[in-house]
Parts: sequence; C-alpha cells; structure tokens
Amino acid sequence: MKRIGFIGLGLMGKPMALNLMKAGYKLCVYNRTRSKMEDLVAEGAIPTSSPKEVTEKSDIIITMVSDSPDVQEVVLGPLGVIEGCKKGKILIDMSTISPKTSKSISKKLMEKEVQMLDAPVSGGTIGAREGRLTIMVGGLKETFEKCLPIFKILGTRVVYMGGSGMGQATKLCNQVICAINIQSVCEGLLLGKKLNLNLEKLLEVVTGGAANSWMLTNLGPKMIIRNFQPGFKISHQIKDVRLALSTGAELELPLPCTALVQQFLRSVEAENMGDKGTQALIITMEKLAQTQILE
Amino acid sequence: MKRIGFIGLGLMGKPMALNLMKAGYKLCVYNRTRSKMEDLVAEGAIPTSSPKEVTEKSDIIITMVSDSPDVQEVVLGPLGVIEGCKKGKILIDMSTISPKTSKSISKKLMEKEVQMLDAPVSGGTIGAREGRLTIMVGGLKETFEKCLPIFKILGTRVVYMGGSGMGQATKLCNQVICAINIQSVCEGLLLGKKLNLNLEKLLEVVTGGAANSWMLTNLGPKMIIRNFQPGFKISHQIKDVRLALSTGAELELPLPCTALVQQFLRSVEAENMGDKGTQALIITMEKLAQTQILE
Repeated sequence: MKRIGFIGLGLMGKPMALNLMKAGYKLCVYNRTRSKMEDLVAEGAIPTSSPKEVTEKSDIIITMVSDSPDVQEVVLGPLGVIEGCKKGKILIDMSTISPKTSKSISKKLMEKEVQMLDAPVSGGTIGAREGRLTIMVGGLKETFEKCLPIFKILGTRVVYMGGSGMGQATKLCNQVICAINIQSVCEGLLLGKKLNLNLEKLLEVVTGGAANSWMLTNLGPKMIIRNFQPGFKISHQIKDVRLALSTGAELELPLPCTALVQQFLRSVEAENMGDKGTQALIITMEKLAQTQILE
Repeated sequence: MKRIGFIGLGLMGKPMALNLMKAGYKLCVYNRTRSKMEDLVAEGAIPTSSPKEVTEKSDIIITMVSDSPDVQEVVLGPLGVIEGCKKGKILIDMSTISPKTSKSISKKLMEKEVQMLDAPVSGGTIGAREGRLTIMVGGLKETFEKCLPIFKILGTRVVYMGGSGMGQATKLCNQVICAINIQSVCEGLLLGKKLNLNLEKLLEVVTGGAANSWMLTNLGPKMIIRNFQPGFKISHQIKDVRLALSTGAELELPLPCTALVQQFLRSVEAENMGDKGTQALIITMEKLAQTQILE
C-alpha cells in the first residue's frame, strides 16, 4: 500500500486525512501551524517538519491549502515538495487554485518526471468528514487511474475532466454557480420578508419547485434563524470567485452577476464576517434593504 | 359536486382544466380566442361567450390568464366575472399578478360577498399536465379549505400562505430565485466553455454538489444542445420579474441581481426570442461573451 503525505490539515484537510488513515493508509503529515498535526499524530500519523520531508517519506503527496500562493510556496518554495521529489512520486493538489497556476506548477514538476493531478473538491466539511466529496480531476489519465482508490475513499462522485488544470477549471465553474445561487436565496427571502410572508412556509413552497437549489435547501433555513456557522467560509468563497473572475478576465469573458455578487461578498468581509459561512451574505443584503430577516 | 368555470385556456390553463374534467368536475369554459375552447368542448365542457356567462353557470370560477391587466379586465371589465357573481361563489385566480392588484380585485368582489383566492402555481406545463403543480394560496383560510379538493387535483404541494395577496407574494419570491438561478447556469457554462471543458461532464460534476439547482438540472442540458422549446417562456419570466421589481420598488427593497438579470432577459426578447423557453437566456450571455456554447 502506498504511503501518503498530507500537507494542510485545516477544516477540510484534517477529516480527509483521517478518512485515509481509517482506510488503512500510512500517513506522514505536515502543517505550518504545528499544533494542527497533533490529532492525527495521536491516531498514528508521522509528523514532519517540512513539505520536503513529507515528500521524501511518501509515494503520493496530497496538498490541501488555501490559495494559489500557498500551493506555490508549499510545492516550489524552500523546503518545498519539489525538493523531496523524485521520479514516480505523485502530487495531488486538492486545494482550489487558478487553473493557470496549477498548470505551471505541474510543468515544473514534470521536469523532475513527477506527475501532478489537480483535484479540487466540493461538498464542504460535512462532505470531507463523511467521505462524500465531489472530486474533479485534471492531469494525466494514467495518473488519475493510479490515484482512483484514494479518491474513492474521499469522495463519492469522482470525475476525470481532462489534462492539467481541468479539475481547477471545473471547480471555478462550480463556484460561480454557487455564489450566484446564494445571492438568489438572499433576494428571494428579503422580498418575502418585506411582503410579510412566513419565511418557513415560503421555504417550504419554493423548495418544492423550479426555484429549488442546494443553496436554498441548505442555506435558506440557516439564514432565517441567523445561524452563520461556516460550512464554507465567506473568505474562501471570495477567493474562489476572485479566481473565477480573473480567469474570466484573461479569457475576455464577462461574468456580470458573478462580479456583482463578489462586491456583496466583500461587504460581508468588510464587516469582519469573513470567517462566517457563506449564508452570511444575507447580512449585507439586509443592510442594503434596511430590513432584517429575523426581528 | 361544484360546477367549475375556467377562464384562460393557454399552455397552463388547458391541461389544468382537462385534469379537473378527468376528476369528474363539470366545466364551463371561456377563452378570448374562441378556438382554444374546442378541445375542451370536445371533452364535454360547455363553451360560453363571456366571463360573466361562465360565472353565472358556475359555483367556483378559476382564472388563468397572463398579467395583472388581464385579470382586471376578465374580472372587473364589461361582461366580467363580477357581473355574473353573487354571494357564495368563489373566484380562484391562478394567474401570476401583482399582490397589490390581487388584493384590490379581492376587495371589489368582497363588496358583493364573493370570496377570492389568489393561487398562483409553479411547475410549468409539465406540472400542469401531470397535476403536479406547486400552488401557493392567499385569501380566507375557510375559503381555501373549501377549494382544497380542487387544488389537490391540480397540484401536489399546496400551501396556504395567509390573507389575500399572500399567494402572489410567494410567487414573486419564487420567480426572483428562479431568474437568478438561470443566470448562474449561464455564467457557469460559459466559463466552462471558455476553459474548454466538456460541458456534459461539467454538468455531471456540478449537479452533484453545492452548485446544484432545479435550473441547472433541467435547463443546463437544454442550453448545451440549444433546445429552446419553452417550458416557461422568456416573456412570462420578464413579466414576473417586472412584477417582483415593481413590488420591490414600492417596498423600497433593492434587488440588484434580479434587476441585472431582467436586463439580460430583455435582450433575449429584443432578439424576438420572447416565445422561447427561459433557457434562451444563454443566447444573450453568449453574445456578451462573443462565444457559443455549441459550435
């Protein structure tokens, strides 16, 4: 059985790493904040002091960090993955970053005959915990097939999307749709509030038909009771939408609603609510409307 | 068994009227374009020459027409429902109109001791045909309960939302969410196209997670094969969003994404595509992006 190195043990990474250990894999782990390794070490994972060391001790390395610069640093920086890499090892980057950055990192690794897959996920912390993520994968098909047993532990819907960067490309499309759908829930609920509708009943009706969405079903009820616990953080949504918009800009693609929603997301962040769940978008929309969902 | 009068035998009204007849109700019908009555008359419905005549011959009158002025004309105009009405008869307006207009018509009827329910529906022509509509009802609770057997023939999810106008209020919220969700599908698919993704695969992935919606599942596949057959027409979507925006304006409620999507819907109409299904929104977004989903 291959040894897996896991870098990035945050809200998503930790439960994913745990699932791999439960499935019998031996894990080496690394996290910048060392204390985040403790739980996994208690379960038998080997702690290391750098991405380089993780890589030396593993066959397959998984990175699950925040943003493009984080992946660049962890992979290409001093004591990075690339320094511990040799032919035959595989890097799976499950972070959400720009397709362009992903491709360029992959190219650098290829010079050392190291294959990289971009394999961002959807499904939030619940999906990570339950091994029910959606995983969208780019890279060599052959490499994808080698890693499939690992993906199948982490997720239920695993789709090969094409060459390097295509997993990230898919994730950006996913995030564009998500962001706009959250906005639709906000506008629908606020109109309902202003019209004095009972919002529980409103949700009961509108989830039954053409207005329904994952966001309506899952975030609508949280908005109306003001539960802002994060399933997925505002700050991460902003980052993903920023990647989509900058990718769109490079491709000369206008994304008007995406861009508008991004401005409202920024307003949530401006209120120091970046760590709240994406349903906190309702806070900004409430201010704009001078009204509150819950009195 | 009560006799039902049915006014407005369009894409929605006709299959709804047919379902009532199949359930054993005796129907009187009226349609401005007389030829649209023929199919129902062939099934045993009694044709009439005015809303007044329909009303005289029925206990419960259902209107299913296009817009606020149409309901006003059919109910309050010369030879309208109000002229044939007397105490104890019930008007059920299943059109989508403004909550304000609905309330004011209800008030006028109340002067003749005639109860009115506003009961707009969601679910499109398929829902109408299969008796699987979602019905959101406003008016007197007692009147609602009297009419429940009729609603249960037409729909599966029937929810009483409150006093007069509250059914229409609910429908507007529903339409706001629908309109924005269609936009999210357009922006997500166009980004995918520009990133050279296989759009069938993209839909396979994104429908599996947090991006999913009724619109994504139902209109996404139609957009990518350019099937613009209407389930729900662009021109009706524009009308509903206009009602939502004007209601929002009266309530001093900004609905920024709704307003933006309305502008794009207007562009579809400007191309003489108002009779196409709402998935034709992709046509305008393609022009904006100087790209096409299907080459």
